[in-house]
Parts: sequence; structure tokens; C-alpha cells
Amino acid sequence: MGKILFKNARILKMNGEDIFISNLVTNDNLIEYIGDDYEPYGPFDRIIECNENLLMPGFKNAHTHHPMSILKSYADDLPLHEWLFDKVFPIEAKLSEEDVYEFTKLSILECFASGVTACFEYYFHYYAMLKASEEMGMRTYMLLTPSLPEEELAAIHEQYSDPEGLITTCFGLHSVYTPTPEFYEMIIRLVNKYHTPFYIHASETPNEVKECMELRNMTPVQFVESMDLFKYGGGIYHGVVLNDNDYEIIKKHNLTVVTCPGSNTKLASGIADTEKMVKNNVNVAIGTDGPASNNGLDMFKEMWLVTGLQKLLHNDPSAMDAKCVLEMATINGARAMNLTNSDILEVNKFADIILIDLNKPNMRPIHNIVKNLVYSGSKDVVKLTMVDRKIVYEDGKFYVNQDVDEIYKKCQYLADKLTK
Amino acid sequence: MGKILFKNARILKMNGEDIFISNLVTNDNLIEYIGDDYEPYGPFDRIIECNENLLMPGFKNAHTHHPMSILKSYADDLPLHEWLFDKVFPIEAKLSEEDVYEFTKLSILECFASGVTACFEYYFHYYAMLKASEEMGMRTYMLLTPSLPEEELAAIHEQYSDPEGLITTCFGLHSVYTPTPEFYEMIIRLVNKYHTPFYIHASETPNEVKECMELRNMTPVQFVESMDLFKYGGGIYHGVVLNDNDYEIIKKHNLTVVTCPGSNTKLASGIADTEKMVKNNVNVAIGTDGPASNNGLDMFKEMWLVTGLQKLLHNDPSAMDAKCVLEMATINGARAMNLTNSDILEVNKFADIILIDLNKPNMRPIHNIVKNLVYSGSKDVVKLTMVDRKIVYEDGKFYVNQDVDEIYKKCQYLADKLTK
Repeated sequence: MGKILFKNARILKMNGEDIFISNLVTNDNLIEYIGDDYEPYGPFDRIIECNENLLMPGFKNAHTHHPMSILKSYADDLPLHEWLFDKVFPIEAKLSEEDVYEFTKLSILECFASGVTACFEYYFHYYAMLKASEEMGMRTYMLLTPSLPEEELAAIHEQYSDPEGLITTCFGLHSVYTPTPEFYEMIIRLVNKYHTPFYIHASETPNEVKECMELRNMTPVQFVESMDLFKYGGGIYHGVVLNDNDYEIIKKHNLTVVTCPGSNTKLASGIADTEKMVKNNVNVAIGTDGPASNNGLDMFKEMWLVTGLQKLLHNDPSAMDAKCVLEMATINGARAMNLTNSDILEVNKFADIILIDLNKPNMRPIHNIVKNLVYSGSKDVVKLTMVDRKIVYEDGKFYVNQDVDEIYKKCQYLADKLTK
Repeated sequence: MGKILFKNARILKMNGEDIFISNLVTNDNLIEYIGDDYEPYGPFDRIIECNENLLMPGFKNAHTHHPMSILKSYADDLPLHEWLFDKVFPIEAKLSEEDVYEFTKLSILECFASGVTACFEYYFHYYAMLKASEEMGMRTYMLLTPSLPEEELAAIHEQYSDPEGLITTCFGLHSVYTPTPEFYEMIIRLVNKYHTPFYIHASETPNEVKECMELRNMTPVQFVESMDLFKYGGGIYHGVVLNDNDYEIIKKHNLTVVTCPGSNTKLASGIADTEKMVKNNVNVAIGTDGPASNNGLDMFKEMWLVTGLQKLLHNDPSAMDAKCVLEMATINGARAMNLTNSDILEVNKFADIILIDLNKPNMRPIHNIVKNLVYSGSKDVVKLTMVDRKIVYEDGKFYVNQDVDEIYKKCQYLADKLTK
């Protein structure tokens, strides 16, 4: 794309500074300049008149399983165990590389339309997911677990070791209730060899914690720590059910908790106490979870739920203010994914940015833009999404070097084939 | 508009029939034909190729205070009493007819973009609200309470007595804790004179119910019934805290409960047990409440919350299925507002319809369109909104005979003036 001038924008850097009206210049994949005196940075390949709309860092979806969009609205309104074991797992067992490739692309479209510029992705069929992410241009932090032999996992991790690359990886496990002893051993070796953060679904439901206690006399978080897997940091997805000792472990290793309020609500898992986490200075990021358990990839919905559910949980309308939620959805997510080069708008950071249309009825009047975003925002206010030097979404259209209608058609064909 | 042919649409009548692909003809404000053999109904003033997108009845927002968009994001994250008495009421006391007029228009824009074709409106400065609703073309059922002298309320009600008109009215009270004895007497006289349904905010918070019990030894619902105000039906907004006797009253008078999950969540009022209401055959409709307490007018958000919160409340992911929620948002809302001529798609019903774009990533794949709408839907899938013979919103643009940018500007000016 070369050089783009975003002219006359409200700029929300997310570094604590107030919003101000100015200009932002991107050069290739980086922010080159923010300020009034932009002319020396020209000539520009494109000048985007922002009309005082809002330029801000893109959202970071810190927990998702993109290929699961194949199961969107296939089996809802069922008890968790039945949903997972009778509906999800049997279909997953039949998934091909092609299914995973097409449905990852479908989900990435939804992300771009929601202003998401980076995803913390976890599923299987890695080669298909990596191909889809690269082709679509989605910044991806991918969790690698033992669904491939150890040497292949290591090779993928090494291939994507450039911290400036579009895709980076770390290691983890699905949960404490699925892996075999060999899987634990494999991941312990890989984490220790590559010094990577470790992530896992943990403490998602009361039942999961109860069963872990019965089996091991430890909570899931305690069990993971007992294997020294948090040595290089990382964190947990969900964290609905945490005790004081879990908090000690989370604080000791500076772990992230990725809260997934949409999924936890729809699956009746409970409400994670993110208010308590924030008060304990835990890095809380936000994830949609997979589109089969939510069923969307909409960070506006998740942001609203994070604050709304805390207000309900604590019986206190003043719980969890909007600014804190917006930080979770942006900088905290970047931190969770080790993407500290795309957390805020600043010179030499990645130009992973979104333009929010403030000329929409739900964004008016402007008393407080951050509150408008969190309490009134919706996907339709995303005017433009830019990731890794490319504008991938603008004014309702996708620019992903793919025939979008073909993706829809292919996905329908594959979904029908799989579920019939 | 004359005659419009919606060609080649998936049609969801909301009368229990399955979705089918066919055509729909509107003639002025009515549906003239649904079926394959549309040619005899031509010529058409416009032919809309629907490309198998979904045509369905518009959403009915069964509780809102549109002018309160002036307070959107002005004062959030506060305890309910402080929010209401220290922030909302002082601003409301200063509101002019002009404020109410402009901000009603702003909110109606948001409704049209969300696929809402009718609103159950309640605020004050009726002449300003009526003017805004008429000019914008929003079907409105307006609650009249004693903010004007009795003869003026009666005159408004008589002026809007045509059940086929764009605007109709009924009588009610704000709540059991605000009216003077004279106000009760006035409304009792009006309800008895015109035989109208009666509506009131009731049982919204535990505190409201507790105070009513202390003062009158009756719940709010019991107190209203004791004055025989439900003689001609009607219902309550919110209904978060209901006891068995309240249920008896609701069933006896065939009352509607308008649930407002967004508002009840954000203000930490609690979760209305809509699952129990449905099991008791109560007509449950959905309202956003005013945009100061939500802070949106987005029926997709409300639908997701209705089901999500029931799953949490009952600790059961199978609680409150999508079909039931979609009925609440459409036909039950129409019933609440006495709009039985715009509840479903059928010949001679009002052509208050919306076209849903299924070629959006969150609406794909199609396993179950109703679930996609409720669990994955978002405002950006609303492709077209038609109310009372006019297409008021299409492909992101408003057609309301108003300069939309001027509405934004005027609202900003008025909001700044009022809050500075």
C-alpha cells in the first residue's frame, strides 16, 4: 500500500492520552507519523479524509477457534456436555483440511468487519489455518498443541519465529481433562526448549474444577503450575471459577486471563469475575471463543457483556467502567498475544488500525466517545480495518484478494456435506 | 411508493410456517400478495431483487424513551439512584420541546438501522415526539401519562384513534412511586372513558418492590390491579421481580411483560425470569428501554441478551430457544402495542418489513436462519427497512426526508448546550 495519510481524524492512541484531532501517516506496515505537520512525510499513495471520525488501534480477539464457524447455529440450546460430546466432537472428528481452511477464511471476514486486527487462534489442522490467515492477511497468534507430532510443532514454531511477522505461535494444551500424559510431556519439552508462554482452557466451568479437584486434589491452574508450564508466562482462557490460590499463581507468573463472556453466557458456564481480576492487576483480555459457542465474532458484543455482566454479578451499576473494557479489548489483548508492537497508536508501531464512523446514530451525540464505543457501539460503525499494510475492509466491502461470495458458497457446500 | 415487488426472497412469515423462497408484493402500506405467481399484480413501481435474502416482519421495540438519547454516555457507571436523581432527572427538567424533537429523530434513525418498524414510546413533550415520529415515518404506540392536563391527553388520544394510522396511543403511569393521587385519578378516568390498555414501569428493581410493600403492603402489580387499571389489559415494563400473586394478576388480565435485558443488566437491576413467563404463557415482548440506560436501540443485542441471560439465570444452556426470542421481538411486541396488523407477513397486513442480508460472514453458513438471527445477528445485516409504505433505510442510507447530518449536528449542539 505504500504511504497512506489519514487526514483530519480523531485519534485515540490508547496510551492514556485524551482523544485529539490530527493526522496519521502509515508507511508500509508501520505508523510513521502522528501530528499536524504531515507534509514532509508525503507524497502519499492515498489520502483518506477521515472527517473527524475516530482512528484507534484494532481490536484483539484473544481467544477464538475460527474453523468452528462450520458449526454456527448447528446445535445450540443444549446442555454443555451433550453439545460438546454429542454434537461438536463428532463433527470435529470428520473435519478436513479443506473445511478448516474455508471456515477460517469465513471467520476472518467476520473479524475484519468487526474491527478485529489480530486473533489468538486455537484449533487443529494448523497448515490449513496458517494458509487461510496468511492469504486473508489476519495477524494471528496461534496456539500449538499436540495435534501434530512434536517435530512438526517445533518446525511450525520455528518457521513463524519472526516477532515482526504476520503470524507467531506459542505452545499450550486444550485443557487439563483431555491430554494424555505423553501430550503433557511433549508440551513441557517444547515450552522449555523455546521459552514460550503457555496457554490453556482452564476453570471454564464449576464442573471442570470439581473434577480436577477430585482427580488431582488441585485446581486446573494449580495443576498446570505444578508442571512448571507457566515458567515463561502465558495464561488461561475463561477463568470463570478461580480461588485465592489460583489468583496467587496468576499474579506470580503475570498471567493473562482471557475472558469470554459471550461463550460463558450462552453455555451457562457462569460469569468470570473480571472486576476482581482488574482490582488484582491481572491482565484481562477478551475473546469471543469459537463461533459455535457464541455464535459471533463481534468484539462490540463482548465489550458490552464484559461490563454488563460485572454490573449484574456485583449488583453495582458502577462496576467495570468503559475505559477499562476498551483497554482489555485492545492493549491487554495485544499483551496476551505478545503483540506489543500493535497495542497502541505510536510511531514505529504496526499500523493495525481501525476507523470508527462517528456519523452513525448510535455514536451520537458525543459526550464520551469511549463510552459510546463500549455501551452503544456495534459492528456497523467500523468504517475501515487495516492490518499488516493492507486495508482489508472498507465501507462494508472486503479487500482480501479472494472472491467473498465464493467463500460463502464453498462454506455452505462443505457445511451441508458435513452435517447431512 | 405505490407497488413494490420483492423478488426471489427467503420469506419468514413468523406465523409458524417454515421459511420458503418466493416473492412478496406490497401495495401502498399493505402486503398485497405472497407467492410465485406475482405477475398479475404488476406493473410495479420498483422491483427489488432479493437474491434469496430474508424478508421478515420488522422488529417491535416494545419499550423505549427515544428523547433520552440526549443523555447517551453522559452519565454511566453510577449507582441507579444517583444516576436517576442526580444526573437524569436534573437534565430532564431542563429539556425543551426542541430537544425532545431532535433526539427522538436521532433515535428513530438508530431504530431503522436496527430493523425496528414500530416502537412503544414513552416520554414527555408529546407534541414534539409525535411530530418527530410522523416526520420520520416511525410506527409508534405512545403511552400517555399525566404530563399534560387531562383534556389535552384526551384530545391527543382521540386525534390518534385510527387503528390503521401510523400513531396510536394508550394511557399509563410512570411507576407506582412517582405519581400524585391526582395523577392516579386522572388516568383511571381516562382508561375507563376510552377503554384502553394500561402500561407502567413495574417491578424493575428489588428496592422498588420492597418500598411498595412497605408503603402499601402490596407489590406494584397488586397495587395497580387494586385500582382496576388493568381492566382493559395492558402490561408492565421490566417485570424483574415478580411473585406468584403477580403472575396470577398477569395471567388473569392477559398482560404483557416487556422485558428490557440491556437496561436491567447495565443498571444492575437483575434478570427478569422470561423463561418462567413463557412457561406461564405470558406475552413477553422486548424493549431496549431508553438509550441512556442501555445505551443502544439494537434489537439484536436485546435478543441475544434475552436468551443468554436465561441460560445464565437457570444454569441451563438449553433455556429460552432462539425461535421463542424471535417471536418476542416481532409478534409478541406487535401484540403488546395492539399492532396485530403488522405482526406477521400475510396478505392485507401492513408492509412493515425488513430485508436481512444473509451474505454477511456472521449469517453464514446457513444451518438455521432463526438461530443465526438471534445468536449471530447484528445490525449490519439489516439491508432494508420499510414502514408505512416507505423504504426508510436501505444499504446503510436513510430515506426519511431529512438531512441526517443536520440531525447529528443539531443534536450535538443541543446536547452540549444542555450539559455544559
